[in-house]
Amino acid sequence: MLVTTGANIVHDVIEAIGLPHLKGTEVVDDVKLYKNKINRIYDVFLPESYFSDLEEWLQGEVFPNLPQAVSIRELCSLIGERLEDPHSILKCAFDAEVPVFCPAVQDSIIGLQAWLYKQSNSFTIDALADMQELIDLCYEAKHAGAFFVGGGVPKNFILQSMLLTPKDFDYAIQLTMDRPETGGLSGATLDEARSWGKIGENAKSVAVYSDATITLPLIVAAAKDRSKRVPTS
Amino acid sequence: MLVTTGANIVHDVIEAIGLPHLKGTEVVDDVKLYKNKINRIYDVFLPESYFSDLEEWLQGEVFPNLPQAVSIRELCSLIGERLEDPHSILKCAFDAEVPVFCPAVQDSIIGLQAWLYKQSNSFTIDALADMQELIDLCYEAKHAGAFFVGGGVPKNFILQSMLLTPKDFDYAIQLTMDRPETGGLSGATLDEARSWGKIGENAKSVAVYSDATITLPLIVAAAKDRSKRVPTS
Amino acid sequence: MLVTTGANIVHDVIEAIGLPHLKGTEVVDDVKLYKNKINRIYDVFLPESYFSDLEEWLQGEVFPNLPQAVSIRELCSLIGERLEDPHSILKCAFDAEVPVFCPAVQDSIIGLQAWLYKQSNSFTIDALADMQELIDLCYEAKHAGAFFVGGGVPKNFILQSMLLTPKDFDYAIQLTMDRPETGGLSGATLDEARSWGKIGENAKSVAVYSDATITLPLIVAAAKDRSKRVPTS
Amino acid sequence: MLVTTGANIVHDVIEAIGLPHLKGTEVVDDVKLYKNKINRIYDVFLPESYFSDLEEWLQGEVFPNLPQAVSIRELCSLIGERLEDPHSILKCAFDAEVPVFCPAVQDSIIGLQAWLYKQSNSFTIDALADMQELIDLCYEAKHAGAFFVGGGVPKNFILQSMLLTPKDFDYAIQLTMDRPETGGLSGATLDEARSWGKIGENAKSVAVYSDATITLPLIVAAAKDRSKRVPTS
Repeated sequence: MLVTTGANIVHDVIEAIGLPHLKGTEVVDDVKLYKNKINRIYDVFLPESYFSDLEEWLQGEVFPNLPQAVSIRELCSLIGERLEDPHSILKCAFDAEVPVFCPAVQDSIIGLQAWLYKQSNSFTIDALADMQELIDLCYEAKHAGAFFVGGGVPKNFILQSMLLTPKDFDYAIQLTMDRPETGGLSGATLDEARSWGKIGENAKSVAVYSDATITLPLIVAAAKDRSKRVPTS
Repeated sequence: MLVTTGANIVHDVIEAIGLPHLKGTEVVDDVKLYKNKINRIYDVFLPESYFSDLEEWLQGEVFPNLPQAVSIRELCSLIGERLEDPHSILKCAFDAEVPVFCPAVQDSIIGLQAWLYKQSNSFTIDALADMQELIDLCYEAKHAGAFFVGGGVPKNFILQSMLLTPKDFDYAIQLTMDRPETGGLSGATLDEARSWGKIGENAKSVAVYSDATITLPLIVAAAKDRSKRVPTS
Repeated sequence: MLVTTGANIVHDVIEAIGLPHLKGTEVVDDVKLYKNKINRIYDVFLPESYFSDLEEWLQGEVFPNLPQAVSIRELCSLIGERLEDPHSILKCAFDAEVPVFCPAVQDSIIGLQAWLYKQSNSFTIDALADMQELIDLCYEAKHAGAFFVGGGVPKNFILQSMLLTPKDFDYAIQLTMDRPETGGLSGATLDEARSWGKIGENAKSVAVYSDATITLPLIVAAAKDRSKRVPTS
Repeated sequence: MLVTTGANIVHDVIEAIGLPHLKGTEVVDDVKLYKNKINRIYDVFLPESYFSDLEEWLQGEVFPNLPQAVSIRELCSLIGERLEDPHSILKCAFDAEVPVFCPAVQDSIIGLQAWLYKQSNSFTIDALADMQELIDLCYEAKHAGAFFVGGGVPKNFILQSMLLTPKDFDYAIQLTMDRPETGGLSGATLDEARSWGKIGENAKSVAVYSDATITLPLIVAAAKDRSKRVPTS
């Protein structure tokens, strides 16, 4: 399963409906960008018009075709089903039947758009509806591993999923630039999660304090390479 | 209004029902802590029994007395109403009629407990139900300022609230240890938010990259001191 | 004693000879600054002309009046003696007879200027000459404490000074934004120094991971306040 | 040329004379380590005995065979000449005739050992003696590039070397985890160096905020790979 943020979903959908993110720079006059209708995410630029295009697609093609009440997992799945871009995370997850959870979906443009739709239509997203499925997945797993890219809500949501089962994670990896000293969960060591019983006593865990845009591709490449060489009999 | 995380609410309630957080240390054997039923948050220790006490209180005194469908804001308010500790954030917010939003409430023990309750009772939390109130508050404000302690979901939720109004924030302060270079919103400069029109062209903004447990009390003390001296006629 | 960097000395002298540092901004076109002959240090601006003024002062009034061979500590002292600004660190240190060490003085404009002077004059700075005095100070101290503002060469130089004595530091404080995970000494925990015997087994130590421009004044203010109240008999 | 820290030289020599650094852990009781005569550098362990072995080698084989006055560059070269380990940085630099500068050499065990030797022998290290060679190298270079691994004294020493020439660096790369907001040079952007004219107006520069133990091998591997493919005619 995948647990992610609203922003990840929004920007995945934006790319997938044909609106490419642009390579910009972080040393820039943001008021000038605003006047030119360019939104900035660090060194990435997005024309403001993308959000009208996204609105049109969501209000026109997605929301009217949804059930009146959905869980967030269903919402992610139903969006993924409507995408065609083979590089889209939601599309790949749908095709591979990987459930996608997004606990804070209302904290995103998709959340805002869902609310807009709800203004003139009967529509609810039940915040608790995903829990059963999530906990079932944890319960039924023979082995459970956690792979964290960054921190935030997804990190805790993944870790806390084990609290309602008698199990714990057998291994865990975290790629992050956050630091432990602030006391927040994002930068917390994975050892801290052992004190809670979320990660098992004998579980292997490692935190890599480095930029995930560098370390994630390295790990994926290494995993692909090994999977070719190792017989999985 | 206050936008916060599930963890902040959980630990506020724990303190408020008489279960004090303990000063521990971050240099510790977490497996040993686990065996002694102590949960660790950086250098703070909590006996695991606190969570049974919290469960008892929530399942016994809180959830059975709630309406069958609540918004997250209502949930926070109804919890605050039941607390007596004058130092509790939820209690103070309730008394002062400050609405508390917590977009990712299911990402917390209170979320897990709400789900447990829902197992044998009719109960839903509508993830979108708060939006109207939030946006109304933004719409009606003569002046809007944002004060961010840390980042995460609350930071974006506060900033995006302005996107559906013709307004923007007149000033913004951020206290954080997160850094811009990872590209995440938590460490993003407040200038970045100007490119989106969330913070106004002429708005004053400042980010203080330092530990908020040090800088927040300084700012509060200075504000209290000034408010005594400055006539507010 | 004070152990510091070449840059700290250079900018102390610049202020002390009447050339004030200017409050600028870090969001700026540096090529434009260069063309306007403005040097930038994060959000501080310095006119390039300051360095000609500094050169004139050092080559005209300082170096010609120095002995042909000096230790770095003597150099700092002899510069401090020539300053009149009561806010200058070097001036205050000279007046209070606090020795100032600067192990990497050649890594600064003062180092470059010393080399320029040496081009046409007989002049040497013996890199090892300070050690005896430093180690004597450590040897003779009844109690030794270390107060680190930032990391770098001064941090290690202070810590290693104890290695040649049978003593160790009785207490240590560090104010820093550096982080342990990179493995460098600047962000290393003070506990690490215990494994080396630089900080004593029973010594009190604390690291404050926060901006020293905020935490240092707080500590100084608290120390001043306490020193008024506590009889030192 | 290579500019480095005293610690890098010390630990290079320790490995080269047959004393391997050991993989330990950073979650450890440092007082226990101290009692077991193990020194810790983050997650690396070194038996304290290594430093006696290093002392024996330096006082027995190195210092007695040095001239009475050396520059730091000569010291590094003369140590490299005596090493046989083909993986040693100092040895490789000596063989390849790459000068090694170490501005703060006294801030290291080699500095302490040099001072010990000086106690009963005539010996000086002239802190300014390297400058001429360094500046000549900069002057004579047709193209100059800077590659920074971390920050500290080496970063500034490399950058300031251009200040006494009419030239500037044509390109610059920095691999670091330090951050700009503290105002220190280690985390400063490379653009800041443009305002000083250290890096040229049209120079290419890039800072990679990530762990250099991950990014440096990637860059070296990519460079080796390209050098095989690109004809250098």
